[in-house]
Amino acid sequence: MTKNRLEAFSDGVIAVVITIMVLEFKVPQETTWEALLPLIPTMISYALSFIMVGIYWNNHHHMIHSVTSVNGRVLWANLHLLFWLSLVPFATAWVGEHQFAQVPVVVQGVVFEMAGIAYYLLSHTLVHHHGRDSEFAQALGGDFKGVVSTLLYPTGIALSFVHPWLGFSAYVVVALIWFIPDRRFEKVHPKG
Amino acid sequence: MTKNRLEAFSDGVIAVVITIMVLEFKVPQETTWEALLPLIPTMISYALSFIMVGIYWNNHHHMIHSVTSVNGRVLWANLHLLFWLSLVPFATAWVGEHQFAQVPVVVQGVVFEMAGIAYYLLSHTLVHHHGRDSEFAQALGGDFKGVVSTLLYPTGIALSFVHPWLGFSAYVVVALIWFIPDRRFEKVHPKG
Amino acid sequence: MTKNRLEAFSDGVIAVVITIMVLEFKVPQETTWEALLPLIPTMISYALSFIMVGIYWNNHHHMIHSVTSVNGRVLWANLHLLFWLSLVPFATAWVGEHQFAQVPVVVQGVVFEMAGIAYYLLSHTLVHHHGRDSEFAQALGGDFKGVVSTLLYPTGIALSFVHPWLGFSAYVVVALIWFIPDRRFEKVHPKG
Amino acid sequence: MTKNRLEAFSDGVIAVVITIMVLEFKVPQETTWEALLPLIPTMISYALSFIMVGIYWNNHHHMIHSVTSVNGRVLWANLHLLFWLSLVPFATAWVGEHQFAQVPVVVQGVVFEMAGIAYYLLSHTLVHHHGRDSEFAQALGGDFKGVVSTLLYPTGIALSFVHPWLGFSAYVVVALIWFIPDRRFEKVHPKG
Repeated sequence: MTKNRLEAFSDGVIAVVITIMVLEFKVPQETTWEALLPLIPTMISYALSFIMVGIYWNNHHHMIHSVTSVNGRVLWANLHLLFWLSLVPFATAWVGEHQFAQVPVVVQGVVFEMAGIAYYLLSHTLVHHHGRDSEFAQALGGDFKGVVSTLLYPTGIALSFVHPWLGFSAYVVVALIWFIPDRRFEKVHPKG
Repeated sequence: MTKNRLEAFSDGVIAVVITIMVLEFKVPQETTWEALLPLIPTMISYALSFIMVGIYWNNHHHMIHSVTSVNGRVLWANLHLLFWLSLVPFATAWVGEHQFAQVPVVVQGVVFEMAGIAYYLLSHTLVHHHGRDSEFAQALGGDFKGVVSTLLYPTGIALSFVHPWLGFSAYVVVALIWFIPDRRFEKVHPKG
Repeated sequence: MTKNRLEAFSDGVIAVVITIMVLEFKVPQETTWEALLPLIPTMISYALSFIMVGIYWNNHHHMIHSVTSVNGRVLWANLHLLFWLSLVPFATAWVGEHQFAQVPVVVQGVVFEMAGIAYYLLSHTLVHHHGRDSEFAQALGGDFKGVVSTLLYPTGIALSFVHPWLGFSAYVVVALIWFIPDRRFEKVHPKG
Repeated sequence: MTKNRLEAFSDGVIAVVITIMVLEFKVPQETTWEALLPLIPTMISYALSFIMVGIYWNNHHHMIHSVTSVNGRVLWANLHLLFWLSLVPFATAWVGEHQFAQVPVVVQGVVFEMAGIAYYLLSHTLVHHHGRDSEFAQALGGDFKGVVSTLLYPTGIALSFVHPWLGFSAYVVVALIWFIPDRRFEKVHPKG
């Protein structure tokens, strides 16, 4: 089974997810500079989520690029990832509209964590499909950044109970870690 | 006529359908855990619809992949399927916002059933286009799962009149049946 | 210049246009069958617009498929068509929410007419690019259906001033005429 | 790294951005011609933004077409451009709903300017990736129009403080300058 439509569909869903988040920017009733102030938390929340979803797209791009074929399990693991990414706009809007209140920040962390776990499951479904000795599996390697971020999100969730900004900062750290795209796969040239 | 743009357009529409459903998650006014409780039915309704639309995309992916060419009739049969899929977000939101009330659950079943019938019509339009003796027609075979689900939806609709949760459970059974993607087409290698 | 991205971008815009129309279906406050009654005009208006946009996609698919290359003018003529198609959801919602009142039905006709003119301009930009003696120009021919529909829309607009349903019926006639996709281009095999 | 998915994802995001702007057209409560009058500023604002985003898509199409490969930095520079383009619908709606008030027109200019800077950064990331002596770098040349528009937007922003319509006119001038697509790249034939 070829991977082209998997890429096309994922691109479509991620493109819509990243773009409909902007619908959360409610047009201010006033036309003063002050009217923009309440939008600043929404903007910060939006910027982080835009970067996060961008990171997933980037890594997804690299990972699937190095894959030679997909099967039914991979399609489902991919849909599972898209499911959690589709909940990012909801969490982002809740955080932004309520100035980084505790519960929304925790929920945002949970959504990010679930997306991280789904990405991890997708990568291991691909390893299983290609075999442990495949070029793909070797390129994936220890998946250091993946492991670090699935640990950092729960840390952020826990820190949110101390203060929401501490939790949010942990999510920003994850974004910074992933900012450098996954060079592991740049060397792999799929045969398929 | 090549099938590439049919795939691209279908991927686009299905990607938007599956993603705009999340717009139904209204951001809670409060920032308490209790504020999330009313969203639980919406979440259950959303999860089922996400999986359902995902199943259609998966099966559509498999079916069109094994097709060698399309014609005008196929384009229309495909649009007909997309029409019913486009109504899924409406039914999903109605079910979720009204805690699985009877009429919305019945309407959701009708939309699923119509999409199922549209998928059936699409597959038979493709059989007609390729010929009854084609590799494609033989791969489609008796279409056991397609027949079962077009019978299960009306059962679910009828059960909704007893209790909405019974009806909804029938839709979940259909999802479980289709969860395993259509292996029939995995063997067919299109020549086109 | 290759036509691939022109197709991809047009598919994307048309997919979003055809799908966001469904956002106009406001979820009823009640969960009775009667609560669905006010949605019937919206449904009729939506169904026609879905078919109309589907027709444009079908014809666009056929026309661009038979094209060997595009230039800057073609990109702009294509964007012009997408502009008018992007206004279809607005007109559709206005017609549906106000039970086929006169002004909305006229506005819907104007949007359809402008999209029709934009399609005509696109096809003639393509003829100009390929040359009057090209296979493409000969396939386009007299463009009988294009001419008829650009005459039928103004007729519908005029009839709307007698009664909105008369005008709407004229738009339905256009849809019926175009229902059969453009066979002219099915014979042309692009060299590019 | 191939550029195909960069194109597909950008097409997806730009297609959604250009289309969801139409959601700002709130359906009038009345069905009179007068009810359309308040929508005229929204229409003007929408038309300019549609053309602006169309220009970015056109130029992006031309630029990426002439590129032979991309790297991680290019993906991020591209996401940065998409971020600013995603804010266009917000600014457009604010301008339209408040009849070209000063602050919204300034904000629209800032968003356009940031998108212009992001496009400039993307083009120079691509020059850096391909080398200063590459065919691509020579095709980009002095980037006259890019420089002119990044100067015209601040001029428009400054003029908005005199009168919003003066500022908006400056943005229209930028649109007119870019209306003619970038012929520089039409001569470059990528080898990749």
